[in-house]
Amino acid sequence: MIGGGQLARMMVPAAVKLGLDIEVLAETADGSATIAPHTVGDYRDLDTVLGFARGVDVVTFDHEHVPQPVLRALVDAGIAVHPGPEALLAAQDKIEMRRRLGALGLPIPDWAPVGSAAELAAFLAEHGGVGVLKTARGGYDGKGVRVVRDAAEAADWLAGDVPLLVEEAVRFRRELAQQVARRPSGGLVVYPLVESVQRDGVCAEVISPAPGAGGVAQAAAHVASTIATELGVVGMLAVELFETQDGGILVNELAMRPHNSGHWSIEGAVTSQFEQHLRAVADLPLGATELRDPWTVMVNVLGGPADGDLDRARVAALAAQPTAAVHLYGKSPRPGRKIGHVTTGGPDLDDAVYRARAAAAAFD
Amino acid sequence: MIGGGQLARMMVPAAVKLGLDIEVLAETADGSATIAPHTVGDYRDLDTVLGFARGVDVVTFDHEHVPQPVLRALVDAGIAVHPGPEALLAAQDKIEMRRRLGALGLPIPDWAPVGSAAELAAFLAEHGGVGVLKTARGGYDGKGVRVVRDAAEAADWLAGDVPLLVEEAVRFRRELAQQVARRPSGGLVVYPLVESVQRDGVCAEVISPAPGAGGVAQAAAHVASTIATELGVVGMLAVELFETQDGGILVNELAMRPHNSGHWSIEGAVTSQFEQHLRAVADLPLGATELRDPWTVMVNVLGGPADGDLDRARVAALAAQPTAAVHLYGKSPRPGRKIGHVTTGGPDLDDAVYRARAAAAAFD
Repeated sequence: MIGGGQLARMMVPAAVKLGLDIEVLAETADGSATIAPHTVGDYRDLDTVLGFARGVDVVTFDHEHVPQPVLRALVDAGIAVHPGPEALLAAQDKIEMRRRLGALGLPIPDWAPVGSAAELAAFLAEHGGVGVLKTARGGYDGKGVRVVRDAAEAADWLAGDVPLLVEEAVRFRRELAQQVARRPSGGLVVYPLVESVQRDGVCAEVISPAPGAGGVAQAAAHVASTIATELGVVGMLAVELFETQDGGILVNELAMRPHNSGHWSIEGAVTSQFEQHLRAVADLPLGATELRDPWTVMVNVLGGPADGDLDRARVAALAAQPTAAVHLYGKSPRPGRKIGHVTTGGPDLDDAVYRARAAAAAFD
Repeated sequence: MIGGGQLARMMVPAAVKLGLDIEVLAETADGSATIAPHTVGDYRDLDTVLGFARGVDVVTFDHEHVPQPVLRALVDAGIAVHPGPEALLAAQDKIEMRRRLGALGLPIPDWAPVGSAAELAAFLAEHGGVGVLKTARGGYDGKGVRVVRDAAEAADWLAGDVPLLVEEAVRFRRELAQQVARRPSGGLVVYPLVESVQRDGVCAEVISPAPGAGGVAQAAAHVASTIATELGVVGMLAVELFETQDGGILVNELAMRPHNSGHWSIEGAVTSQFEQHLRAVADLPLGATELRDPWTVMVNVLGGPADGDLDRARVAALAAQPTAAVHLYGKSPRPGRKIGHVTTGGPDLDDAVYRARAAAAAFD
């Protein structure tokens, strides 16, 4: 596992369950996943990554930031890398992603690469005077994304050396996320479509399944399955989607790993996204993805208690909601930081939402 | 966590979830629980245990074998030990256990300590010529237990220096297990009563809840709650019970830790026995114990594949039953050894039993 954040951390219980040995290449010695056997090292350094990878059967990731030359060198050295460099490129580079999805005829927002203020201005003029400017690389959780109404607003980014793209500002009903898993020998499983509620560009809540999805669920499953198959993704794939005002869907972003929109699956699905990712990258038979409850609700714990007293907050959360699954990532509180999440389930959506929010609120 | 077996191993995912740090004092470097940060050392050696315990907030166990002088020394050194020495004594010594439960007026088989062939012969004569002879200490999984019909059969054990007791050979309908958890500040939660199917003295299957338990469930909950409270148990307590021919219950054995009869709770209860044990010993609020499915079935994986090829067997199990939760303990196959377990759940008991047995059979 390259990357020592909470996604790698949550794969540890799945590895323990399946009897697989997991090793982490962590950015820092106090990373979330350093509860597992680990090495501390720079994932951008070829020798570091190669040395780590030679000791394992398969390499996978908790993020998409390993540089392409490093990924290619691993493959050239005969090491199994899942997902592979070619697939990962579409998760690393939004211009590449848009090009490939467009070529596959999948539903995406209108977009264009942007190299100058004139190009940006032309796109804005054709799209109602507003667009969403994105850096092609390195964005996450609302970073690397801004709404622009005038090319002059983007002068700072245009002066930089990161490639940019602009997309139409989609007027959407809500955001959805579709996860699938695919193994190297080709098996593919589809998770239920979920609704993801964003605040300030960060995932705040997820409801599984997406209420009233109807035919959109089939369309989303088709889109995600097509992407996984055509891009050769191995492991979990999360497709973030817009549900448009007219009831269609458009692909927003891709992640080729377990994703915040799938944390609900630890308790809410027969096979969690973390176990599924390990099964997929180890080319083991994939597990069932059925819901375990009519409704599952996940609420992120963002920031944590202002006084920094996580022990007190944990006691308060557990005492308030004995049916809630409280997950903490071993991170210290900091404004806006994802330090944990809470999951609830049951036959009544409102009740599950109430309990999840109440438990998460104990960390405010 | 003192003890590095599969029970300690299965507490690791619970610690990861709650954001608690876990350290293991393991018997050997290749123990099941050495996936967690660990020290290898002898739990019978005071200096080893004291050195380990000084670095942690609370000490707990995956077995009951730490000697009383070591336990007492930890308490004298001001270290939090849960369950404590006084409670643990009843799980370590069956004569002590029978005396205490008898004094509490709880239902137990007729029994007597045995110091000589004459005493054994007298007990057998009063109980239809048959009895179950047990070593007071050190027995588990059918070891330290034998049926005797003549005092002469027991000459070898009587010549040894381990104290013995004899119990009536209970004619029972079936075996049941009742788990409860108690925290130091007094809170107590009760799990559903389960049926445990033994083969050759070893747990083979568990069905949760025990089918048709009726009023027995209330009696079992009362017995286990009384034991936990009166003996001052902190953590999980498992009470193994006989359901007698006339519909009563008798206490068979006690375990003051997570127990094989509670593995079903990982998937089948809102809070698993492993998370509950950690919550209890850390004096955190206890979690809900409700069933997540109408039926949950747990089947032990005993021995493992004759050819030793666990990788092949795992593939076969996962392929055969995509809805089964397959747990492996990181142990190499050996006849009779508990190397894992499989859990299934659903609305139809027969179907869940079929799926769990089919997945477990892939390891034969």
